[in-house]
Amino acid sequence: MTLQQQLQHAINTKTKPLGSLGLLEDIALQIGLIQQSVSPKITKPHIIVFAADHGIATTGLVNPYPQAVTAQMVLNFVNGGAAINIFTKQNNIGLTVVDAGVNYDFKNVDSIVDCKMAYGTKNYLIEPAMGEAEALQAIENGKKIITQIAAEGCNTIGFGEMGISNTSSASLIMSAIIGNKINDCVGRGTGVNDAQLQTKIETLTKVFEVHNLGEFSCKPVQLLSKIGGFEIATMVGAYLQAVKSNMVIVVDGFIATAALLLAQQQNSDILQNCVFAHASGEQGHEKMLSFLQAKPLLQLGLRLGEGTGAALAIPLIQSAVLFLNQMASFESAGVSDVIDK
Amino acid sequence: MTLQQQLQHAINTKTKPLGSLGLLEDIALQIGLIQQSVSPKITKPHIIVFAADHGIATTGLVNPYPQAVTAQMVLNFVNGGAAINIFTKQNNIGLTVVDAGVNYDFKNVDSIVDCKMAYGTKNYLIEPAMGEAEALQAIENGKKIITQIAAEGCNTIGFGEMGISNTSSASLIMSAIIGNKINDCVGRGTGVNDAQLQTKIETLTKVFEVHNLGEFSCKPVQLLSKIGGFEIATMVGAYLQAVKSNMVIVVDGFIATAALLLAQQQNSDILQNCVFAHASGEQGHEKMLSFLQAKPLLQLGLRLGEGTGAALAIPLIQSAVLFLNQMASFESAGVSDVIDK
Repeated sequence: MTLQQQLQHAINTKTKPLGSLGLLEDIALQIGLIQQSVSPKITKPHIIVFAADHGIATTGLVNPYPQAVTAQMVLNFVNGGAAINIFTKQNNIGLTVVDAGVNYDFKNVDSIVDCKMAYGTKNYLIEPAMGEAEALQAIENGKKIITQIAAEGCNTIGFGEMGISNTSSASLIMSAIIGNKINDCVGRGTGVNDAQLQTKIETLTKVFEVHNLGEFSCKPVQLLSKIGGFEIATMVGAYLQAVKSNMVIVVDGFIATAALLLAQQQNSDILQNCVFAHASGEQGHEKMLSFLQAKPLLQLGLRLGEGTGAALAIPLIQSAVLFLNQMASFESAGVSDVIDK
Repeated sequence: MTLQQQLQHAINTKTKPLGSLGLLEDIALQIGLIQQSVSPKITKPHIIVFAADHGIATTGLVNPYPQAVTAQMVLNFVNGGAAINIFTKQNNIGLTVVDAGVNYDFKNVDSIVDCKMAYGTKNYLIEPAMGEAEALQAIENGKKIITQIAAEGCNTIGFGEMGISNTSSASLIMSAIIGNKINDCVGRGTGVNDAQLQTKIETLTKVFEVHNLGEFSCKPVQLLSKIGGFEIATMVGAYLQAVKSNMVIVVDGFIATAALLLAQQQNSDILQNCVFAHASGEQGHEKMLSFLQAKPLLQLGLRLGEGTGAALAIPLIQSAVLFLNQMASFESAGVSDVIDK
């Protein structure tokens, strides 16, 4: 028997009707294949929150929150008051906060990993968000962070993000890669009203034209340079290293999935390692998931980011692995299997 | 401010965009209202698995598994090998197994709670499943079990079940109460094939006619007497006591929801205390949930029973309560709230 057949046999002979654990059975099989083992394990699950600022935020055209909220929320992460703190603590998940380019000086805060590329990107309505060399450096930073966390024994990783206006970057990346029109990719982000939503769509449509995003197929580094965020670029590197380190990658919401779209352009094998945590309340996310043929674990209407969807899904991923390892089989438990199928 | 306003204010001023925790915000509000507290707590969450046998199973007309599997699975629960064992252990949930009427003698097994009414129900294709006095006694048994567990400090309870053929009872209850035709209520249960499904539908349609289930509005005890299972009757009592004890009730899948349909006929207030764990892969379940205007937490394609959906959902319920209690507010964290909405 191949490993896949062995895993499927193990799943099918557990004391339960065939297929009755639904998606958890798919996840158990997938993680067995990732780890090339009939008894896979989730060890030291960890979430990294990548934070950065976006020049576009200062225009007031795409987001109702001031840019300063990015830094305020990073300090909230450090002080344990944000949703991601509560959920990672609840579920025994490690948490690392990375400054990938926040417009604030965190030098006195030791617990933040310093990968700052700049004090925010430039305003991509009038110029590229960053240089290509900067995009490449941010990708390298992401790789290094994962290499270190993998070395500490973590084999399951989720990525969250914080960055006022970063749903705009994510929408542009989505539109450029998948080909949906901007208004199919733009949502309410952290809560714009109808008029603000219209301004957001008009602004991003203009950005799309300014950078000729529809004219040719951009490479990930080019896209990041034009309209990326530093947190997204760093996340791309993290994805690429996570698959190299053969981790289970727990994909969070709209922005994390946009970063995955870029990473899978570089390495399409990455999808084999991805478990999709949830379908976000942000409207474009469903289209991204459909493009990636992803079956998300949760549909809770979350649209918070920070990796919160990943943190809530990790217990279900653990459940999948635990049933595979610990449930009795029909034979071992002396339970009659169905006779006539 | 009313308690509801206080809770909504607390939820809205947490450091996150308005409404961005989706369903978890609804759950936090609901549990605050159940417990009449701005800082509700989940204490000693517990799942009870009610097991019983069904006379109809011996006809071979509705299920591909032999009746003996009920007792075999109960022993599997006792020995820790079933899915519900794995998930309750993982999530620190207490587990109690109740023999409500299994066709097996468990006298030597101390850890099973003995509420046995008989060695299975009678075959409702030709006679009532049980007497009305038996149905009433089983309901009383369920109440007693909950009174005891509540006295031990548990305030959050989920009900699971095991009983070969009990999807048939549940389908009949659903059809009688909601009014859907039998073929809209019948699913594949633990895995019948196309021909078996047709036989199942024909058999249950006949049962429906034999007992005139469509002719008049049956009271819960009458319905239980005609086509109920002992596990379902005991569960009805457990639901009724759980709302009296003001517990958070975590509603599992198809059979547990059918029992809830009966309980809410007796006491419609019960729905205020119910959190719906998941939408089952069993086709009638979605219609039941829609009838109850329920928004389930999980959609994993589960169709196993045992309370597994409840066990997987309880961590999310805990997440809802934890964010309400532990997250910082905009004010306490020094985070700017949105200015212009």
